[in-house]
Amino acid sequence: MLIQYKQYYLHQRPKGPTTDSDVKVRTVEVYSLAEGQLLIKNEYFSLDPAIRGWMDDVPSYMPPIVLGDVIRSSTVGTVVDSKHPDFSAGDMVYGLNGWEEYSLSDGYFLTKVPQDNQFPLHYYLSVFGAVGLTAYFGIHDTAELKAGDTLLMSAAAGAVGSLGGQLAKNMGCHVVGMAGTDDKCQWLMDDLGFDAVINYKTESGNLSAAIAAACPDGVDVYFDNVGGEILDAALLNINSNARIVFCGSISTYNASEPVPGPYNWWQVLAKSAVVKGFLVSNYFEQFETGAGALAQLLTEDKIQFKYEIVDGFDNTLTAFHKLFDGSNTGKLMLKV
Amino acid sequence: MLIQYKQYYLHQRPKGPTTDSDVKVRTVEVYSLAEGQLLIKNEYFSLDPAIRGWMDDVPSYMPPIVLGDVIRSSTVGTVVDSKHPDFSAGDMVYGLNGWEEYSLSDGYFLTKVPQDNQFPLHYYLSVFGAVGLTAYFGIHDTAELKAGDTLLMSAAAGAVGSLGGQLAKNMGCHVVGMAGTDDKCQWLMDDLGFDAVINYKTESGNLSAAIAAACPDGVDVYFDNVGGEILDAALLNINSNARIVFCGSISTYNASEPVPGPYNWWQVLAKSAVVKGFLVSNYFEQFETGAGALAQLLTEDKIQFKYEIVDGFDNTLTAFHKLFDGSNTGKLMLKV
Repeated sequence: MLIQYKQYYLHQRPKGPTTDSDVKVRTVEVYSLAEGQLLIKNEYFSLDPAIRGWMDDVPSYMPPIVLGDVIRSSTVGTVVDSKHPDFSAGDMVYGLNGWEEYSLSDGYFLTKVPQDNQFPLHYYLSVFGAVGLTAYFGIHDTAELKAGDTLLMSAAAGAVGSLGGQLAKNMGCHVVGMAGTDDKCQWLMDDLGFDAVINYKTESGNLSAAIAAACPDGVDVYFDNVGGEILDAALLNINSNARIVFCGSISTYNASEPVPGPYNWWQVLAKSAVVKGFLVSNYFEQFETGAGALAQLLTEDKIQFKYEIVDGFDNTLTAFHKLFDGSNTGKLMLKV
Repeated sequence: MLIQYKQYYLHQRPKGPTTDSDVKVRTVEVYSLAEGQLLIKNEYFSLDPAIRGWMDDVPSYMPPIVLGDVIRSSTVGTVVDSKHPDFSAGDMVYGLNGWEEYSLSDGYFLTKVPQDNQFPLHYYLSVFGAVGLTAYFGIHDTAELKAGDTLLMSAAAGAVGSLGGQLAKNMGCHVVGMAGTDDKCQWLMDDLGFDAVINYKTESGNLSAAIAAACPDGVDVYFDNVGGEILDAALLNINSNARIVFCGSISTYNASEPVPGPYNWWQVLAKSAVVKGFLVSNYFEQFETGAGALAQLLTEDKIQFKYEIVDGFDNTLTAFHKLFDGSNTGKLMLKV
C-alpha cells in the first residue's frame, strides 16, 4: 500500500446547515499510482459558500457532488509521487480536489505554483485563486464600472467583497459596503477606505433607506453575493441602466425549501437594468493576467487582504459554519 | 364652453383585476385653450397590459397614475383646435394621452402621422407604435440574436410576441412560441412560420419538458412577456451565456399580493446568463428608423400583424380584461 488518508465525503444531502450526519469522514487507501496519476499532500484546503451549493441536487454551473464522493474543494499542496508527465515529486500545485489529507489527481485543472513565488502558499487558494480572480474580473470587466460610479457591495467584509471594493476604490468609484458587525464596518472604513458602510443587521427592516442615504446618487452597480432581503433593498435604489453582478446568494444556500427570486424583480425592467450571472470560470484564459495584476497590487500595497486559517483536519465542519453565521472575516481556509 | 367629453379616471387602486369601482367615467368640460395647448379628438386608444401596472402605487419606469387622473394610454386622433405653434387643426397625431374621447395636450410626446401615410390610422398605436417598436428593438438589438440561435417567445400570439417571432424567423433563428390556445398555436405555425409551439395551458405542470422538447439545442434567448411559471420553466432550459429579454410580466400584473421573482433565479448565475430589463423608450431616438423598417417589412409582406378593435367607448373595461384572460389575439385597441 502506498498511503492511507482521511477525507470528508457526502453521506446524504443536507437540509439546511451541513451536519456531521451529512458529511462524514472515512479513511481511503491508495495501493499504487496508475499511469497519468499523481498524489498530492494537501497543505490547505478551501472553505467556500459555493461548496454548500454543490451538496444540493440542483442543476448548477458544476454538477452536484455525487453521494459518496469526497467534498469538492480547492487545495494547495506538494506532489509526493507522480506518474504524470507534467508533474514531479516536490512540485507545489493548486487546483480543484477535495476536503482530504491527500489527493489523487490526473492533473486536470491543476496548476503549479510559480517557482519564483514570494507569497505564502495559501495565497493560491485566496487572492490568486477563485476568490481574488472573482473580485478582479467581476469589478474590472463584468460590472462595467467607470470612475465616479457608485458601487454597492454586499458581504463587503468577505473575501470577494473586501477585495472587490478596494479594486473599485482604486478605479475612482464611490464604494459602499454592507457587512454584519460594527467591527467589520469599521475595518472597511478605516483600513480599506470605503466611502460608507451599512450594518445590515442593525439596519434590518430599514435597508432600503440606509442604502439611499449611503448612495446619494443612486446605485450604478450592485455586486450581489448574498441575495434575499439585501438584494431586494438594493433593487429599490438602482439607477437607470444599472448593472447587477450576480456572483452569489449566500443567504439562500442553507434553505431547505425553494427560495424565490427577488420580490422587487420588476425594478430590473423599470430601470432597464442588467443582471449578469457571473462565473469566474468564464475568464479561465485570463487567469494568469488577473493573478499577475493582483500580485502587483499587493506588492504596491494597493490592496489588503484578510484571511482566516483554521488549524486541524477535524475542525473542518465547525469552520465551514463560520461562513454562514457571519463570524469569519476574509477568506476562510483549513490547514490540514 | 369649448367642449364636453367623457374620460375614464382612476378612482381607487385595483386589487386584482380592474373593476368599475376602480376606474370610473366622468364628464370633463374644457372652456378654452391656453397658449401652447391643443385639443385632439381621439379616434382610437390603446389597451395594454402595462396600463394595469400604472394603476398600482409602485415605483416603475413611469410614475403611477395619480388617483383622480385620467387612465394613461396611447391614442391616435385628429387635432380639432390648437394654440400650439407646431400643430394645426386637421393634423393627425399620436402620443401618450388617455382613455378619453378628447385629449387636451401641450404637445409633449406627441407625433404627427406622416402626410404620405398609406396605412390605417390605428397602425400608429400598434405596429408603428410602442408594440411594434418593442418587438423590433427587442429582437434586433437587446436580444443579441444571431442566425441559428433558438428564441423562446412567451405570449407569442400577443402583439409583441407575434411580431418579434417573425422578426427572428427573418433572421434565421429557430423560433418557438408559447400561447394559451390551440388556435393561437396553429396560427403561429401555419401563418407565421414558427418552428414549434407550446400550449402553456395544456402543458401546465410539464412546461420545462415541453420547452426542452421544442428546443433541442437549448434556449439562447428567452423573450419574457409573462413572468411566473413560464419564466421559471424557461430558466431551466437556457444555454450558457443566454439572454433573457425582460419585457413584461403579465402573469403578475393583477396580483393583489407582492409576487416574488423566479424560483429558478439561481440559473441566471449557473448559466452566466444575462437578464436585460427592456424599455422601448430607451430607443426613442431610433423610433423613426424602426417604424420605417417595419413599414418596409409590411410592404414586402415579410411580417403579418393581427389586431382586434373593440368598438365603443363604454366597452373599454370589458375589452381591457381580454388582455388578462387570454381571449384576444394581437394588439387590442378601442375605437372611440
